[in-house]
Amino acid sequence: MLVALAGGVGAGRFLRGLVRIYPAEQLVAIVNTGDDLRMHGLAISPDLDSVTYTLAGRADSERGWGLAGETWNVRDALVRLGEPGWFGLGDRDIATHLYRTRRLAEGATLSQVTAELCGRMGVAAHLLPMSDDRVETRVEVDGRDGPTDLSFQEWWVGRQAREPVREVRFEGVGGARPAPGVLDALAAADGILVCPSNPVVSIAPILAVPGVVEAVQAATCGKVAVTPIVAGAPVRGMADKLLPAWEVEVSARGVAGLYADLVDAFVLDLLDADQAEDVTALGLRAVVAPTIMHTVEDAAALAKTALSAL
Amino acid sequence: MLVALAGGVGAGRFLRGLVRIYPAEQLVAIVNTGDDLRMHGLAISPDLDSVTYTLAGRADSERGWGLAGETWNVRDALVRLGEPGWFGLGDRDIATHLYRTRRLAEGATLSQVTAELCGRMGVAAHLLPMSDDRVETRVEVDGRDGPTDLSFQEWWVGRQAREPVREVRFEGVGGARPAPGVLDALAAADGILVCPSNPVVSIAPILAVPGVVEAVQAATCGKVAVTPIVAGAPVRGMADKLLPAWEVEVSARGVAGLYADLVDAFVLDLLDADQAEDVTALGLRAVVAPTIMHTVEDAAALAKTALSAL
Repeated sequence: MLVALAGGVGAGRFLRGLVRIYPAEQLVAIVNTGDDLRMHGLAISPDLDSVTYTLAGRADSERGWGLAGETWNVRDALVRLGEPGWFGLGDRDIATHLYRTRRLAEGATLSQVTAELCGRMGVAAHLLPMSDDRVETRVEVDGRDGPTDLSFQEWWVGRQAREPVREVRFEGVGGARPAPGVLDALAAADGILVCPSNPVVSIAPILAVPGVVEAVQAATCGKVAVTPIVAGAPVRGMADKLLPAWEVEVSARGVAGLYADLVDAFVLDLLDADQAEDVTALGLRAVVAPTIMHTVEDAAALAKTALSAL
Repeated sequence: MLVALAGGVGAGRFLRGLVRIYPAEQLVAIVNTGDDLRMHGLAISPDLDSVTYTLAGRADSERGWGLAGETWNVRDALVRLGEPGWFGLGDRDIATHLYRTRRLAEGATLSQVTAELCGRMGVAAHLLPMSDDRVETRVEVDGRDGPTDLSFQEWWVGRQAREPVREVRFEGVGGARPAPGVLDALAAADGILVCPSNPVVSIAPILAVPGVVEAVQAATCGKVAVTPIVAGAPVRGMADKLLPAWEVEVSARGVAGLYADLVDAFVLDLLDADQAEDVTALGLRAVVAPTIMHTVEDAAALAKTALSAL
């Protein structure tokens, strides 16, 4: 069994490649829920949905998020009613959120709902939220009138990550328990993969759930991280706006430094081959390979590289 | 001030005509909520929405329910997820339900939410739910395996009113209180109108809320009902399937009989002029006029007839 720590779209693409070369039923993905939000009363789990949609082959690859062939009629009608429209809720996506919201209201856990949604969308991999408890990623930014505290999505989507981030915190994480299956999967893993996701707001919240870092460190299997940064810039998303808040260089070696105590190998891009030495100096095995996933075949090749590095 | 007792589409059309000849701000419509339902976790109030959409000029007049220019992408995606799709939820309609559901979850009453939705849709008339308390219209039908108890919508929409109805009941109505403003409006009314709505499942639930019948009867203003039945058949809907459950003839005079203790005048169609005598025999003033509303001008003319009859 393989266990992956996963954020949203980047993780989804990588895992879609992985299940081309590895049985999906034997893959457990532990997914960030720090970005989850309530909007229009709907329970939205952006990273869980991104991974689910991508593994189901239904993600919109051009837009980079949400479902292919999406429409926006509900959102437009909500805006017409005077409701906020900044969060991109597509009509088909809303069906997912309606299902999740109803099931949670009925008393189901996020883990249960996630398994149900995967089953209904034909996703064979096991997706686990990092926790069934509420954890909320919040950022403190330099606002016009001094420091301003925002939910991650308010800043990321609502303000398009305009203001520099001073601090990131994971509200509620101290009291959060790993979702059922998370620690067991890590203990039984034949390999642990850290997906090419945002280290600060996708991977760090998972690691912040009490017990997770210890479980990863205690696992005796091979552990590999794949860089989300190529040539000093994130492949997608805005990690470049978040790494500086932690005084981490926006580079492959910068991210490798964050994972130095966690994994034993780090995959970095051909374009960053000159950083291999720095990665090695951190005590990690450096694996230089193409990491940009234009196609699912690219993703499968990257997954193969990562598996070999285990 | 005029007060109307209203069901859904038929009432909406009539009231849309009424506000052409009477100031909307001085109209209070008390609307049936017995058909309200939860579906996919959404709080749906079909009659309130029909009247609101019609008064806002946004109803789909061809289909006869819902919003004009509607699409069905959320519903299709829900069906793809394995959820039931029998209740016609359009994408724009869902925006209304999302708003209502969120506000109710925040603790707002249905009255408050209704006023907010009217305001946001530019409806100047005052729509009041008959009650902020839950009342559920249920029907007992002759099923294949004996009597079957169904919610009104399950039978009406889900089974397309196939099975004959043996009994109609308004669950919870005994403990329901009239919504704020209902009794005051009836007491202060300069005229009370019973809209051309289904007598059994639209008007009767309103009258079943404790205190409403008494308030209508105590009002000293003129009171007029408009027939929903023309030439022995409902103008729209399926009143013909429900009146027999109460052993009422499917005719203008049959409906007039139901309202004999409530109003002092009854508007029946030209096509039913031969029933005027029977209506008079019930102690009601019979007003014979065109009642079919093809256009808003027809509706305004019918409203004028009803106002004159006050």
